[in-house]
Amino acid sequence: MSLLVTGSIGIDTVETPYGKRDDVIGGSAIYFSYASSFFTPVRLVGVVGEDAPKSMFDVFKGRDVDTAGLEIRKGSKTFRWHGSYVKDLNEAETVEVDLNVLAERAPKVPEPFLDSKYVFLANTHPALQQQMAQSLKHARLIVADTMNLWIQTTRDELLKLLTMIHGLVLNDGEARLLTGKTNLIEAAREVLKLGPKFVVIKKGEHGCLMCSARDTFVLPAFPADRVVDPTGAGDSFAGGMMGYLATQGGSISPATIKRALAFGTVVASFTIADFSLGGLQATTRELIDDRWHEYKQAMSF
Amino acid sequence: MSLLVTGSIGIDTVETPYGKRDDVIGGSAIYFSYASSFFTPVRLVGVVGEDAPKSMFDVFKGRDVDTAGLEIRKGSKTFRWHGSYVKDLNEAETVEVDLNVLAERAPKVPEPFLDSKYVFLANTHPALQQQMAQSLKHARLIVADTMNLWIQTTRDELLKLLTMIHGLVLNDGEARLLTGKTNLIEAAREVLKLGPKFVVIKKGEHGCLMCSARDTFVLPAFPADRVVDPTGAGDSFAGGMMGYLATQGGSISPATIKRALAFGTVVASFTIADFSLGGLQATTRELIDDRWHEYKQAMSF
Repeated sequence: MSLLVTGSIGIDTVETPYGKRDDVIGGSAIYFSYASSFFTPVRLVGVVGEDAPKSMFDVFKGRDVDTAGLEIRKGSKTFRWHGSYVKDLNEAETVEVDLNVLAERAPKVPEPFLDSKYVFLANTHPALQQQMAQSLKHARLIVADTMNLWIQTTRDELLKLLTMIHGLVLNDGEARLLTGKTNLIEAAREVLKLGPKFVVIKKGEHGCLMCSARDTFVLPAFPADRVVDPTGAGDSFAGGMMGYLATQGGSISPATIKRALAFGTVVASFTIADFSLGGLQATTRELIDDRWHEYKQAMSF
Repeated sequence: MSLLVTGSIGIDTVETPYGKRDDVIGGSAIYFSYASSFFTPVRLVGVVGEDAPKSMFDVFKGRDVDTAGLEIRKGSKTFRWHGSYVKDLNEAETVEVDLNVLAERAPKVPEPFLDSKYVFLANTHPALQQQMAQSLKHARLIVADTMNLWIQTTRDELLKLLTMIHGLVLNDGEARLLTGKTNLIEAAREVLKLGPKFVVIKKGEHGCLMCSARDTFVLPAFPADRVVDPTGAGDSFAGGMMGYLATQGGSISPATIKRALAFGTVVASFTIADFSLGGLQATTRELIDDRWHEYKQAMSF
């Protein structure tokens, strides 16, 4: 079923213990789109500046990603991020960030995208996320991501967003910052009180945690002995999860959510194995399914 | 089958966000013995000073723990530890430690214990662990724990010990310190090169990781929203794991190891719910089995 994503599209410079890549494609919506396109057709809504190289969009050639919602804005510059994982592979140090076009008005959702049933609001200003949530009136499942910056600087707008969405995906540090709870189960339950029906806390190398009124699941990460570049792992996780959910339709059972979290986990394990989109570009749905079965098997006893 | 444990027995003072307890029973061998006695008869070898209150040993009344190897040494003082988890529930800050009798000669293994088939060398000086490993000539499975102190100060003796045991259990920080590898899968594989056939890395709230030449398993912790006192969680984990393994006999299959790790995980989840042995004393094998099935179910999809 139709899955729409909106979020950042950027030009990244990334340093990790395995080397440095300058001016590679990145951004939450890019990783999400690529990851979810292994499962379902994806509608991408985002905006770049006129400096964006045409080759940037070649990454979606041959993939079921509809880029009709991709705006190339004249007179604007593309979002740029320079991050380093040299000190700590688990946490990016932002060397430099230029919001550029992301600090301007939001991109427009094309008319044919307005009937989207599954929506992922990747990390951006919560006021923009609210606008998107309001405009997508046929959405059956709206899930959002957020980050420290918005929790600290636009808390009220984020709290309003939380009353408008079904699910929230965020990392452990963000969950603690948002709720003031150190224990992650407690933090997850606090998030539920703010509106969402479910919350997924991403713990990087330690896997993820899902909490709803009825269930609490904890899943480990796929064991990886070589993490080349963690950029986009969280967005790929969300892409795998939402991509799978979009294929399931109807009501979402606990088992379906677990399978979705496992697909997210596995897709993210491909992302971190290379720089930028390299890890995702080198895989296939078949390899994802193989690893998913391996992961499932590893945890059954 | 007979399971022997040797390690520390101490008088603890513990502070956590939930309060403070003075002069409660503690020590690696105590937690291990109690935890493993839910599964199999346990033989405890350890030494205390003449200051040890008699009530200390009442904790094993009604439990299948043979304390014939418990030496009460005249003229010596019991090991004491004062730790605080007030700042960080995941890592104890040692406020004060008095090795006392632990700095003296090792306790003697009673003659009837010499045929023990399963042996756990809880954390102590690796030279003492070596002596134990050598004296227990009928052991089919010897597993040891260690700590930062020995990795830093008695590395050569620890490396020799690693050639004499089948399995090593240690926490994530210790695994990184021992191997110089930050990635835990890499660290685990380095440990295997040092001798053990398998290694279990305990990650506290993030669960555990098991690595052998053939397999890599990662299991999450049992979700806990209330951690009252983490003291003894690692020893209880090892106790649940070894206690279950001792009931299985014969060759150890990957599925058996996973079940054992899951029992360790579940037993530790009871330990952290109260101070000292309170959490273990409040549970039963039936409650452990119920939670084990719940845990198993939570991870199948």
